[in-house]
Amino acid sequence: MPPVAPRSGDSIFANLEHMNAELFTLTYGAIVRQLITDLEEVDEVNKQLDQMGYNIGVRLIDEFLAKSNISRCVDFKETAEVIAKVGFKMFLGVTASVINWDADGTSCSIVLEDNPLVDFVELPDNCQGLHYCNILSGVVRGALEMVSMKTEVTWVRDMLRGDEVYELNVKLIKQVPEEYPYKDDE
Amino acid sequence: MPPVAPRSGDSIFANLEHMNAELFTLTYGAIVRQLITDLEEVDEVNKQLDQMGYNIGVRLIDEFLAKSNISRCVDFKETAEVIAKVGFKMFLGVTASVINWDADGTSCSIVLEDNPLVDFVELPDNCQGLHYCNILSGVVRGALEMVSMKTEVTWVRDMLRGDEVYELNVKLIKQVPEEYPYKDDE
Repeated sequence: MPPVAPRSGDSIFANLEHMNAELFTLTYGAIVRQLITDLEEVDEVNKQLDQMGYNIGVRLIDEFLAKSNISRCVDFKETAEVIAKVGFKMFLGVTASVINWDADGTSCSIVLEDNPLVDFVELPDNCQGLHYCNILSGVVRGALEMVSMKTEVTWVRDMLRGDEVYELNVKLIKQVPEEYPYKDDE
Repeated sequence: MPPVAPRSGDSIFANLEHMNAELFTLTYGAIVRQLITDLEEVDEVNKQLDQMGYNIGVRLIDEFLAKSNISRCVDFKETAEVIAKVGFKMFLGVTASVINWDADGTSCSIVLEDNPLVDFVELPDNCQGLHYCNILSGVVRGALEMVSMKTEVTWVRDMLRGDEVYELNVKLIKQVPEEYPYKDDE
């Protein structure tokens, strides 16, 4: 049993739409710091952040579908656009763009020029292998899995490593054809 | 040296004012869960959350003073009101009220009827001693310390423990008379 369990039948964030980004940014920094202290190995921290993100994505997808009024995407291409244009905007307050599609439309990059998670952050020398924003790749992977798309999500560019933008490669591994589990008229 | 260090001279969250509360709520849940797994003892988790909050409060105060245009509070009473009415609103998107002042105006309670941190949460039996929102008491304590007020901040009521509201007792221990370190004009 998880130590912090959802209450079933709970109304989903009925009153609370927005909050200030600073508190989140600083809180996220506190998590990363805690994980570095506890786990010591940067690779382990990356894994743990990704797993946390996955668990969050699995939950966040309901909220996203309810709020965005998006009921069904035609294909992976449309899905990627929706994540970039609607999802990142809704949850992080920034928009992203989608580039670098491969020929068969199963791999692309989501590019972020602005990223609230990294305000105030720079990586010290002993953390150069850290994917500081790995929670985000986990969120995308978890959310997509809940709409029947199994993906691999990996960082290609990272501003904390000196790149000009954040670039997240999203590769569709398998799409399970299945009835959409959400009603159109939420 | 902290593993995640602030960049000096950084602009403070220039572009990003608001984000969606859900991501924060779920991310905070992930921290608490991680701490429970790592530290095992609920008392240790409470301590760690408080310390994380303290570190955040110490940073958040600058942002608060800059954004709120509040340059100086006359006394502890006014300070408590500002935290409840302006601070909680700015960072959590909820307002709080101040009650239970003692005779000499050095102790009061901040009452929250709504708390975005606890959406979806219920405590399992083995976590009944957990102060799930302990990060908040730490934030208040850390922020106040930066404006020369040493306080003790403790939970009196907790909705996750069955109370009707969240009540945070704030007790002024010592006020260091000192020049205010912030300019009036931002």
